[in-house]
Order: sequence, then C-alpha cells, then structure tokens
Amino acid sequence: MRAIKFKNKRLLYIDQTKLPLKEVWKECKSLRVGCKAIKELQVRGAPLIGVFAAYCLYLHFKNKLLAKKKFLSKFQKACKQLKSTRSTAVNLAWALERLERLVLRNKNESVSQIKEKILKEAMAINQEDVTLCENMAKHGVKLIKKGDRILTHCNAGFLATSGDGTALAVIYKAHELYKDIKVYVDETRPLLQGSRLTAWELTERRVSTTVICDNMAAILISEGKIDKIFVGADRIAANGDAANKIGTYGIAILAKHHRIPFYIVAPFSTFDLKLDSGKSIPIEKRNKDEVRKLLNKKKVAPRKVKVYNPAFDVTPNKLITAIVSDKGVIKPDFKQNIKKVLG
Amino acid sequence: MRAIKFKNKRLLYIDQTKLPLKEVWKECKSLRVGCKAIKELQVRGAPLIGVFAAYCLYLHFKNKLLAKKKFLSKFQKACKQLKSTRSTAVNLAWALERLERLVLRNKNESVSQIKEKILKEAMAINQEDVTLCENMAKHGVKLIKKGDRILTHCNAGFLATSGDGTALAVIYKAHELYKDIKVYVDETRPLLQGSRLTAWELTERRVSTTVICDNMAAILISEGKIDKIFVGADRIAANGDAANKIGTYGIAILAKHHRIPFYIVAPFSTFDLKLDSGKSIPIEKRNKDEVRKLLNKKKVAPRKVKVYNPAFDVTPNKLITAIVSDKGVIKPDFKQNIKKVLG
Repeated sequence: MRAIKFKNKRLLYIDQTKLPLKEVWKECKSLRVGCKAIKELQVRGAPLIGVFAAYCLYLHFKNKLLAKKKFLSKFQKACKQLKSTRSTAVNLAWALERLERLVLRNKNESVSQIKEKILKEAMAINQEDVTLCENMAKHGVKLIKKGDRILTHCNAGFLATSGDGTALAVIYKAHELYKDIKVYVDETRPLLQGSRLTAWELTERRVSTTVICDNMAAILISEGKIDKIFVGADRIAANGDAANKIGTYGIAILAKHHRIPFYIVAPFSTFDLKLDSGKSIPIEKRNKDEVRKLLNKKKVAPRKVKVYNPAFDVTPNKLITAIVSDKGVIKPDFKQNIKKVLG
Repeated sequence: MRAIKFKNKRLLYIDQTKLPLKEVWKECKSLRVGCKAIKELQVRGAPLIGVFAAYCLYLHFKNKLLAKKKFLSKFQKACKQLKSTRSTAVNLAWALERLERLVLRNKNESVSQIKEKILKEAMAINQEDVTLCENMAKHGVKLIKKGDRILTHCNAGFLATSGDGTALAVIYKAHELYKDIKVYVDETRPLLQGSRLTAWELTERRVSTTVICDNMAAILISEGKIDKIFVGADRIAANGDAANKIGTYGIAILAKHHRIPFYIVAPFSTFDLKLDSGKSIPIEKRNKDEVRKLLNKKKVAPRKVKVYNPAFDVTPNKLITAIVSDKGVIKPDFKQNIKKVLG
C-alpha cells in the first residue's frame, strides 16, 4: 500500500481526505490539480508532498511545447506556486529546489532533454525517500523494547512518505520484530489525521491500536500506560527545534513532566540548517472552518466566534530526547551533533 | 438565560446536545426521562445535574399514590438510579443525599407532606446554587486584572449551573467590570462542550471569544497569549486534587511549564471531604463511539480500532494555584486551608 503511484508516466494519488471510509484514487495531470491536492491535504505528509510535487512538475510540462526561454520562466513560476501551497514542511521546498538547481545546471540542453532529466530526478527523489524510511526504521527500532506502549500524533506513516513512513516506519519495524507493540494514537484535531489515517494504517498492518482524543494523552501517560513517544516532523532547525503537527509541543511537555522519552523521526531532507532555531520556522495558519465545523461539514461553534488555527507548533530542542534520522540517532547537544551526523 | 426552568411545578430543560445550532426545550416528567437526559448530557454540568435530579425526583413521585412503606422504598431506589447516571460529579450525589436525609428525618409524616418537603428542598437547592455562583464570582473576580486573556476548558457557565456558572461566572463578573477581557476556549473533545456551549454562552454575553482545538493550548500559552486559566470541577478531594472534564490535567501541566496561574472554581458542594486524595475519585468511562464518530454521527476511525475514553481526569493539588469557592479563595496548603474555609 502506497499513497501515490507513478506508473507509465501517470501520477495517481489516494485522496486522504476521504480515508478511512473510502479509498478514492485520483490522477494528477496538471499544476492546478497538484496544488489543490496539496493545499486541501488530499496529499499530505512532509516527505510525500516533496515527491508528489516533483512528479507534478514533470507532468505539468510533459506535453507542453515551449521554447527554452518560455519554458525556463514558466518552470520557475510553477516551482514558486507549488512551494507556496504549504509553508511549514521544508521537504517540499527541498525537492523543488533540487529540481530548480538541476534545470539551472542543464539550461543549455534542449527542453525535451531537460524534461527527461526532471523525470529522472523526480523518480530518484521518490526512490531515495523509500530508502530513507528504511534507514530511519533501522536506526529507530533500537530505541524500542519488547512490549513497549508507544504514543504517536498525527500521521507519519506510509500515507506521509513514499516508503513506510518516519515515526510509523520505526513502529512497523518494531512490530515485525516483537509482535507485541501497543500503539496509542492522538486523533489530532482539527483534521483527525490520527484517527482517520494513522489508526487505519496501523490496523491494516495488524498493530494493536487505540485511539484517544488529544486531551486524553496526559491522563494516559500519568496512569503509566505509555513508555515512549514517537512523532514525525515537518521542519527541524540547526539546533534541533522541530516543527510538527499542532499538538506535538504539548505532548513533549507532558513527556518531560512524566519523565518518559520523546523522539522525533525525520530524514535529512526535513532539516533546514539555514535556520538557527525554531523561532524562524514559518507556521501555516489554516481556515477557521476547520475548527468551527467538523471536517468542514457540521457546524459546531457559533458563527460570531473567533478561531485560532495554527497547523503546526515548534517543540524546543530541550524537550526532545533524540532525533532519529536516516543517518543515525542524534542525541543532545543537538546543535553540535546534527552538524556531525548530517555534515 | 437559564439551562432549566421550574415553573408551575413543571421542569423544562434545554437539550444541550442540540446547541449551538438549535434551542430545543424539553419537559421532564419522570425518572426515566430525567436519567436519560443526564446520561446523554442533554442536561450536564456538575451543579446543574444536582438541581435537575432533585426536581426530577419530586416530579417522579408527584402524582403517584403510594403507601408510606412502598413510597420510602421506591424513593430510595429512585435516588440510587439517579446517582448511577454519572459517577464523577459529586454534586449529584450531594443533592440526592440531602433529599434522602430529609425524607429520613420526616419519615413519620404523611407521604404527601414528605413530597411537599422534597419540593421545597429541591427549590432551596436551586436557589442556593444561584447564590453560590454569585459568591464564587465575587471572590474569583479579584484574581482578574483589566485586559486579562483567560483560557477555559469545557463548560462551567450558565449551562452547567442554576446561576451564572462557576469559572464562567467569574469571567462574566470580570467582563462587567473591565469590558476588555479576552477568553480563549478549548473546544473540548469528544463532545465539544467548549465550542458548542461555552463559545455560545460567551458570545451571547458579548465577551470576546476565540475557540481553539484542545491541542492548540500549548502553543497559545507559549506565545504569551494567555495570562491565566480558569476551569470548573466535578469533584474535589480533601487535599485539593480536582476531577474535571478530560483534558484539564494536561492544561494544568502546561500552566506549570509556562508559569501561569491555574485556577479551579467550584462551590462547597463539589468538595468530597470523605476522600483524602484524587486517587479515590471514580472516573466515568464513556462510549467509544464518542471518539470513533463525530458527535455520534460521522465515522472517523476504522471499525476495528480500540478506543480509550475517560470523561474526566484528576489534576493533582500541586498544579493548582488556588481554588475559588463560594466561601472564598483557597490557596495551598490545600489540605489545611480547605478544612479551614469549608469547615
């Protein structure tokens, strides 16, 4: 099971807003459809949207007959448009900038040659992402013991990457190994990626899964029912401060208060070493109807009410026990060790 | 605006599960209807269900012609049944035990005389509750300054009591006084009493109101947008440990981490001095569909998934800055000062 499929130069994606009730596959042929899919979270997950955007870019230009100059300027515009769909996850910008550099390096070749190179690079990004997941799982599983009860937040699994996931890849590996891992999943309001996506993934893989509302994590941990916490990330600064789905910061505080380990799992492409600290990570604010209505349908709050709806928060490095990357487990001092491990 | 009306010996209540979309008034004439209304949270709020249960008990026997012995045994059974509807809030048991003692004291009088006494006592409980709210507001408002930005959780307002509320009564008083109080409301999953009820109450009273998802409180506080937290309670032990709606404990931890005050507001009838600590407070577990579905309708989690759904959690006294009671503000050491203030 994968969240996107690229086959015979066609890009198919599962509409994640319809899960877990329906498995609806859609095709992305244009920039417009791709941007909409990312903005509306039909395709989501920091690593996955990078891969998806790369393919989308290729497909957008595939059948367009353009002179070189026109192509180059339109290509740049398209990159900018895709980047602007989500502001927090850095993997999206990372993948697109990789393609931009590629095009720049090859700008003297013919447009059709450049297009072929874009295709190859998109496929490379995709394949690399699968390998990154395998490597994170390999390193992260060493942090898990037989019988561990793990809390996770939002979705960091095969619906969020091209491979098995970030945090969930580690959990799947531990499940393979020990068979008796128990996972608790925050439902993750407002869009319920935890109960809709993560719980679905985990039960598909036959992992013991219990869903809780976000505000139940504190009592669960205090009752001694959680041994450790694993979550993904959307952007990590050079000092280890990590942006992830809204609610992550609160869980990290709970972990510290109850003295249980709090782990972030993310590939090198999620690190933004240009940023000294998490303070500079842009936080996407989303539509107030995500909170005022349930899944954008049933109204639950009065019309006149104000809403505050940040899609992410930043967990400061001092609350993080370790960051599991594809290159190994990074422990504090993060500033020093991130540089050492990711070079 | 009141959540229940007792007029011409008829008990009307607003069905709170329909708010804020519809204001549906229903009548309670029997024990069966009363128990159902409490269990399904059509009538809710620790102080309010005590008052409602007292009236319900009177109405259940009002037109029944029973011999003394039969009446006394049926009365006891009815009390037991009402008490069993919700296990955490102590005000319910407190009101019913008050009526039980009254009946015991007057068991030599005629059945119709006893019924009249029950009616008078129910009305007294109701009237006292209004006064308790006024007194909590009077004491609590001293903790609020002009321009304060306050976070609250669940509903502790005029929909949860016979008066203006507990935590919200304090806020309404501050709003009257200063005009510029800003209130942030946790939506309070799974049943959204925050966004459905508290946000509705506050906007009706023209208080500046912003709704957030429960998992957004941490970032909001860390951004310096919250000065203090006020919540209600369902049961408080002799040492100050306080049971309140699920999620309260997590907020108290956030308050401690960010060093902002965390206040509980509750009348003397919420204290259960028989319990040494919060460890003995029974925690009601509710149906898993409250979490698996949105407001018991739209399914959001896969069918096979397990759910953990405690309706309350207990905040240990060390996380509480002060408890605002109708008899004054109680500060640590709680064990000593609760005894002193409530005698």
